[in-house]
Amino acid sequence: MTLMIQPVILCGGAGTRLWPASRGTRAKQFLALNSRESLFRQTVARTPAGQHFAPPVVICGDGHVGQVREQMGAQEAQLLVEPMPRNTAAAIALAVAQADADTLLLVMPSDHVIADVPAFHAAIAKGALLAQQGWLVTFGITPDRPDTGFGYIASGEALEHGFAVARFVEKPPLDEAERMLAAGGYSWNAGIFLFRAGRMREAMLDHCRAIFEAADAAVAAGMRDGDALHADAIEFAKAPSDSIDYAVMEKDDRVAVVPVAMGWSDLGSWHSVHALAEDKDSAGNAAQGDVFLHDSRGNLVRAGGKRVSLVGMEDVAVIVDGDDILVIPLSRCQDVRAAAKARE
Amino acid sequence: MTLMIQPVILCGGAGTRLWPASRGTRAKQFLALNSRESLFRQTVARTPAGQHFAPPVVICGDGHVGQVREQMGAQEAQLLVEPMPRNTAAAIALAVAQADADTLLLVMPSDHVIADVPAFHAAIAKGALLAQQGWLVTFGITPDRPDTGFGYIASGEALEHGFAVARFVEKPPLDEAERMLAAGGYSWNAGIFLFRAGRMREAMLDHCRAIFEAADAAVAAGMRDGDALHADAIEFAKAPSDSIDYAVMEKDDRVAVVPVAMGWSDLGSWHSVHALAEDKDSAGNAAQGDVFLHDSRGNLVRAGGKRVSLVGMEDVAVIVDGDDILVIPLSRCQDVRAAAKARE
Repeated sequence: MTLMIQPVILCGGAGTRLWPASRGTRAKQFLALNSRESLFRQTVARTPAGQHFAPPVVICGDGHVGQVREQMGAQEAQLLVEPMPRNTAAAIALAVAQADADTLLLVMPSDHVIADVPAFHAAIAKGALLAQQGWLVTFGITPDRPDTGFGYIASGEALEHGFAVARFVEKPPLDEAERMLAAGGYSWNAGIFLFRAGRMREAMLDHCRAIFEAADAAVAAGMRDGDALHADAIEFAKAPSDSIDYAVMEKDDRVAVVPVAMGWSDLGSWHSVHALAEDKDSAGNAAQGDVFLHDSRGNLVRAGGKRVSLVGMEDVAVIVDGDDILVIPLSRCQDVRAAAKARE
Repeated sequence: MTLMIQPVILCGGAGTRLWPASRGTRAKQFLALNSRESLFRQTVARTPAGQHFAPPVVICGDGHVGQVREQMGAQEAQLLVEPMPRNTAAAIALAVAQADADTLLLVMPSDHVIADVPAFHAAIAKGALLAQQGWLVTFGITPDRPDTGFGYIASGEALEHGFAVARFVEKPPLDEAERMLAAGGYSWNAGIFLFRAGRMREAMLDHCRAIFEAADAAVAAGMRDGDALHADAIEFAKAPSDSIDYAVMEKDDRVAVVPVAMGWSDLGSWHSVHALAEDKDSAGNAAQGDVFLHDSRGNLVRAGGKRVSLVGMEDVAVIVDGDDILVIPLSRCQDVRAAAKARE
């Protein structure tokens, strides 16, 4: 890589799939889940400011500014603060609106894990070459199982450093996921994008003009507070809420995918947090805090400052957070929302 | 019943089989486990002072005096306070030492459940007649399963109101328990006794003189404090520690058993607490406190002031007490001691 790339870290969400640890202002990205570092800090560290990467732009909500600053520590960053959530298209439009047209923006969620960072960097290098040629680049995760929780990207025409995207596939039923896995040429949509700012600006003006114009006006009327630019609430509120996939990527005809196998996970459930935990014991238990385990295997326990004792348990998650205690089989973790909804 | 009977409630133990709810000074008998009333209060209510029963003598340790008084409320009781635990023989000896020789003493643990109180009263009436004839009477629970957690009593010669005890059987292996259940004529030793005080005094002087003399001296040198008599520590410490079964019942040759089926349980595990919980939901969950259950069956949950959420769980106990949280399959509850030992 010889180009300077501007990382844009999307830090707006909260999410309840990891309830009760993730909720409200204490969002998933600020938690240490797979290691002792938070996902946000791992994301920042993945594209370190220096030779290849500029200091990041972090897009976050009002309620997360303090945590972003705290977790950035002494590292330089620019914060773009959303006065209200308007989904990813408007968030990315904020970054596009305040960037030079020739800047390459690398948009990344802040709550994912990437185990193989060199592979990620190699993919970024390929993507940067495509982006310079005017492609809107998405990184496609090479699937290792027929997961029904992700959207899929079908590769089309081969390009020098990737593929033109033939089509985006919504989260599929299992049989279709199995078919795509067997067929090859499909990858998971991980929500990581790379493009020239000016190219995305034009794409947005073509495909979702109202979103870009609202974001552009919100930046122009924004209030600066040190390292943070607070987008104007009245202007930003005018932006329709849509994902960048629907608003731009699926509509544009020069979208490329760079497939990459890089140990990626969105840690979308306690099951995947357990699977990716770095310090499991010999019985496959991942425990954080004051945890006593007797004759127990394959569990995920977060003691949350309490004292948790498991005897004879297998393959469950016990998550303690404040006064909330969740007990759920790891195989049932997609149902955590039932509890989150009842409790929040 | 036309006789006045003196209930003697043994309230000395603590026990860890229901850890973490039961421990230290917060002993099992003071907890509400199967209903909203504590086991101690249920025990007191079973032999109400009045026509048939005198106000109870409660034998407890120093650390439990406050809780006994609190749970007795306005009801009259006499407390015999043990300066240190010396097992059941010495505890009962305290009651015997301060009773008139002709008084009928009904000794009962304070941490059991008896669902059919009329059946218990009918058995007491039979036992009282035997006790007046000089028998040391034990009540034998008619077994409904080959439980290996109890000692068994073999009935011998038939008496008018019960049976002479042929022998006591230690906690048996399963095959022996099954054999006894099939054979009939065996009952569980529930630790409930009825006898003339003078008769027990003589038996103790015969079989365990050191225990009785220590208790007798401890009562004589005891300090009265309102409703409580604090046994003298120096004297009481001289008492060898032994159970009434070993020290007296198994050695005496005029021991009778009154078999009775009365819905008895010693609530000796979270499994039995679940089995006997009075207010289970339609899915067999017994929940106490702020508990959210989704698609969960057959669980026992005690929230202990926290907020517990179970999703997709079956047949487990989740017991919260202070900062301790125990998660254990109900079928594994005999192993709770592993956690209690590690944590206390």
